[in-house]
Amino acid sequence: MAKQLWKPSTILNPVPVVMVSCCGREGKPNIITVAWAGTINSKPPMVSISIRKERYSYNLIKEKGQFVINLTTRKLAFAADFCGVKSGRDVDKFEVLKLTQEKASVVDVPMIKESPVNIECTVKDIIELGSHDMFIAQIEAVSVDESLIDKKGRLCMEKADLICYSHGEYWSLEKTLGYFGYSITKRKEVLKRRLNKKDR
Amino acid sequence: MAKQLWKPSTILNPVPVVMVSCCGREGKPNIITVAWAGTINSKPPMVSISIRKERYSYNLIKEKGQFVINLTTRKLAFAADFCGVKSGRDVDKFEVLKLTQEKASVVDVPMIKESPVNIECTVKDIIELGSHDMFIAQIEAVSVDESLIDKKGRLCMEKADLICYSHGEYWSLEKTLGYFGYSITKRKEVLKRRLNKKDR
Repeated sequence: MAKQLWKPSTILNPVPVVMVSCCGREGKPNIITVAWAGTINSKPPMVSISIRKERYSYNLIKEKGQFVINLTTRKLAFAADFCGVKSGRDVDKFEVLKLTQEKASVVDVPMIKESPVNIECTVKDIIELGSHDMFIAQIEAVSVDESLIDKKGRLCMEKADLICYSHGEYWSLEKTLGYFGYSITKRKEVLKRRLNKKDR
Repeated sequence: MAKQLWKPSTILNPVPVVMVSCCGREGKPNIITVAWAGTINSKPPMVSISIRKERYSYNLIKEKGQFVINLTTRKLAFAADFCGVKSGRDVDKFEVLKLTQEKASVVDVPMIKESPVNIECTVKDIIELGSHDMFIAQIEAVSVDESLIDKKGRLCMEKADLICYSHGEYWSLEKTLGYFGYSITKRKEVLKRRLNKKDR
C-alpha cells in the first residue's frame, strides 16, 4: 500500500514507560512517569530521561543529581498513568497511590518497593533540546525482586509482566517471538534453549 | 518479597527495537537494528540512537549525517534480528532479506518499504559515552502506510503490530491497558472512547 507523508512528530513506538522516583535536597520524594527514556550506553551502563522544565520533578532531579528508574508492570499501569498526569505540587503520589518507599543502596532517593526492578542513577549531564531537557545518567546499582530469579540465579524478566507505551496507550507484552541472534541460529539450538527455559 | 542488589547493567526494559537504514557518502545502503533508541524531545521532535564505533553502519551514519528509523513489526522480527547480528561488511541485507528500498522525501537514505512507519532523521550531534556513541537527531519527516489510517484520517497504530525488545527477546504487544490520562478520567469518558475506537 502507498504511504502518506506526514510532518515531523514523536512517532517512534513502542517506548518504555518508567516511573522515576526523585526528591530534591530536602523536600518530599515524588514520582514522575517518563516515556522519553532509554538505554544509551552499555559500558558503563547509562540511561537518558527527558523531562520538561515546567514539571515539578525537573528541579528535584536537577538539584539532587540523582534519581531511580522503577520498571512498570501491568499491576502498576494505573499508578504509572497517574504519576504521568498529576503533579507532585498538588498531591503526594506515594501516599495517594499507596506505594511504598524503599531505601536505595547508592543514591539518596527512595525506590518504589512495588516495582520489581529499580535502577539507581546519578546525573552526568543535562542537555537542553527544546521542550525537554535530556538527563544523561550513569546506572550505579540495580535491585531485582527475588521472585524474578530462578534456582540457577538467572533473571526471568518475563515473570515481571512489564508494560510499554505506544501511541498514547499502555500495552502489555504478549509472547516472545525469538531471542537476540535467533535468525542465524540452528533449529536444534533454538529447541534446546526452549527446553532450558521450561526447566526454570 | 526481598530484593537482590545487582551490579550496574543495562536493565531498562522493554525498549524499542528499530531498523535503521543508512548509507555512506557513496556506498550501498545498509540496515542496522538498534535497541538503544528513543524519543528525547517533543518540540522539535528528536530521537537518539546509540551505536558502537566498531559497527559498519557507524561510519556510514557519521559520514552522511542522515538515517531513517523504520518501525519493526511482528512480520519484520526475523529481519530485525538478522540486521542486528550480521554485518553490512559481509552481506547486502536489503538483498538477502528481500527488503525493498523506498525513496525518502527529505534525506538521501532509502527507507524500508516493508516497514509501515519510516522516520527521516538528520544528525545534530554525536556524544561519545564509552562503548557506544549517541547520535542525537532531529526528525525531518514521517511516512505512514495508508493501511494504518482510518476513514477520519486518524492513525491506528495498533494495526501495525509493532514489537519491542525485552531482556534479549523480541515481544509482540498484547492488549491495551488504558490510554494516557485514563487514571483521572471518568468511567463515562472511557466507555465513549472505546465506542469511538470500534467505529474505525
